[in-house]
Amino acid sequence: MSRVGFIGLGLMGKPMSKRILQHGHELVVYNRSRAPIEELVMLGAKAAESPKEVAERSDFIILMLPDSPDVEKIVLGPNGIIEGVRKGIIVIDMSTISPFQEIKIAEILRQKEAYYLDAPVSGSTPAAEAGTLTIMVGGPREAFEKSLPILQCMGKNIHYMGNSGAGQFTKLCNQIAVSLNLLGVCEALLLASKAGLDPLKVIEVVGSGAGASWQLTNLGPKIVIKDFTPGFKAEHLKKDLRILSEVSEQLGVPLFGTMTVYQLVKSLVENGLGKCGTQSLITILEQLSKHRVTAHS
Amino acid sequence: MSRVGFIGLGLMGKPMSKRILQHGHELVVYNRSRAPIEELVMLGAKAAESPKEVAERSDFIILMLPDSPDVEKIVLGPNGIIEGVRKGIIVIDMSTISPFQEIKIAEILRQKEAYYLDAPVSGSTPAAEAGTLTIMVGGPREAFEKSLPILQCMGKNIHYMGNSGAGQFTKLCNQIAVSLNLLGVCEALLLASKAGLDPLKVIEVVGSGAGASWQLTNLGPKIVIKDFTPGFKAEHLKKDLRILSEVSEQLGVPLFGTMTVYQLVKSLVENGLGKCGTQSLITILEQLSKHRVTAHS
Repeated sequence: MSRVGFIGLGLMGKPMSKRILQHGHELVVYNRSRAPIEELVMLGAKAAESPKEVAERSDFIILMLPDSPDVEKIVLGPNGIIEGVRKGIIVIDMSTISPFQEIKIAEILRQKEAYYLDAPVSGSTPAAEAGTLTIMVGGPREAFEKSLPILQCMGKNIHYMGNSGAGQFTKLCNQIAVSLNLLGVCEALLLASKAGLDPLKVIEVVGSGAGASWQLTNLGPKIVIKDFTPGFKAEHLKKDLRILSEVSEQLGVPLFGTMTVYQLVKSLVENGLGKCGTQSLITILEQLSKHRVTAHS
Repeated sequence: MSRVGFIGLGLMGKPMSKRILQHGHELVVYNRSRAPIEELVMLGAKAAESPKEVAERSDFIILMLPDSPDVEKIVLGPNGIIEGVRKGIIVIDMSTISPFQEIKIAEILRQKEAYYLDAPVSGSTPAAEAGTLTIMVGGPREAFEKSLPILQCMGKNIHYMGNSGAGQFTKLCNQIAVSLNLLGVCEALLLASKAGLDPLKVIEVVGSGAGASWQLTNLGPKIVIKDFTPGFKAEHLKKDLRILSEVSEQLGVPLFGTMTVYQLVKSLVENGLGKCGTQSLITILEQLSKHRVTAHS
């Protein structure tokens, strides 16, 4: 059994950290707000007062944080992980943040002989609870192999993708496909509805051929019945698309379609739907066309 | 058994018409070029000298033509079907053309007490040969029901979608999903490759989650190994996207993403790749980024 630190007990981090406890590891937790710490302590975790203290008391440290500045502050800021690390410790960042930032942090930790893995996930809270997340990992292979027993508490499909940043780059590729498939679903259903077709029938027909996608099958019916319960929140997609816009600039990759989705998702969040599921993107197209997608009776 | 006419013996029409013969129907054929007519006559079909003659000798007439002007000419032009129709005859247009054109032609034939169905297909030549096309039908329901034994010679999933034009509108919804999913695959693989990831590994990871699509699984690996053999030709996608641009104008449906794909596919065809498969779209993004997607060794 290992000594594991966990920082960031949010909607994803809390169920992920519980699974580490359930697998019999020693767990030290740190979080900005107090309530989830107390919940984890009730289950047997220890509380730390700072990221530095988490590092001092752990052999593996997992981060599950909202965005790049949060990761930077927790790792490199005052009382950060960097002040408590020692040779051989493995820091695993499971947040979705900029790959360039991961490469930078990995290099700084390497100078302290500590390992750093970027290991973003796909899958939402139910998958975190069930331990069935997909995990895409970048960083030194020996650190990946040592971390596998910890990652296996949380994920089912665990992929080693290459050097530092490779996990985040893979996640970004996934978000490109997710974004454009989603826009395809929205535009197809808007046309279907304007043309007087039964949108649920169109989902069935299109979903049985070359237009099939996970987004169509899973989010299409929710769009028709206006169920915007979040599986993946619009504000999180906006953040991932912002990272993609930065990466697109830095690598010189033209992302015509993905950046179109970014503009639309920004409008969606500005319309106050950031906490809704990404399928609420349909509302932006509906506004622009003054037409509502609805089920036939 | 029925008397069936077939006009348009191209890559799709020829195998489709053969299946009608194989099911024991009487077949009369007409085509612009002579060679496929002779091939069908060898198999037992009769040749007609004009669309008018096809109409005079058939109870069902199937059209499988390249574009809207071809359908207009064959149905309404000199020596066209309109000159040979009589009460109760059923004309089934299986081409992919403008839904507004179909609505117009259906109305003209209705005044002659003839039926007109728009029944575009999805699936390529192998599916036409195997009789496993997906067929999306718009028009009078009684004509659809009478036509089912004929349609079942050619297709497996046959969907009645509504009034005249509904078949074409459904096909257009399908092409929206196809186009945006394809662009998603291209942008994801370009980023993957620029970031130094193994693109085949990225296809596997993305294809197992929320970014999964038929386009990714089927065309992704062809993009990586630069196999541009056409399943569906770029020039045909360009035509379908042109129809979508017209429909988008006329119905006031904003198609941000789909029209972006249209611009890129126009460039692709102008680059001389119209006869290649749609997966060759990657070459446009590669040109713009001066980077080539390749498999890792």
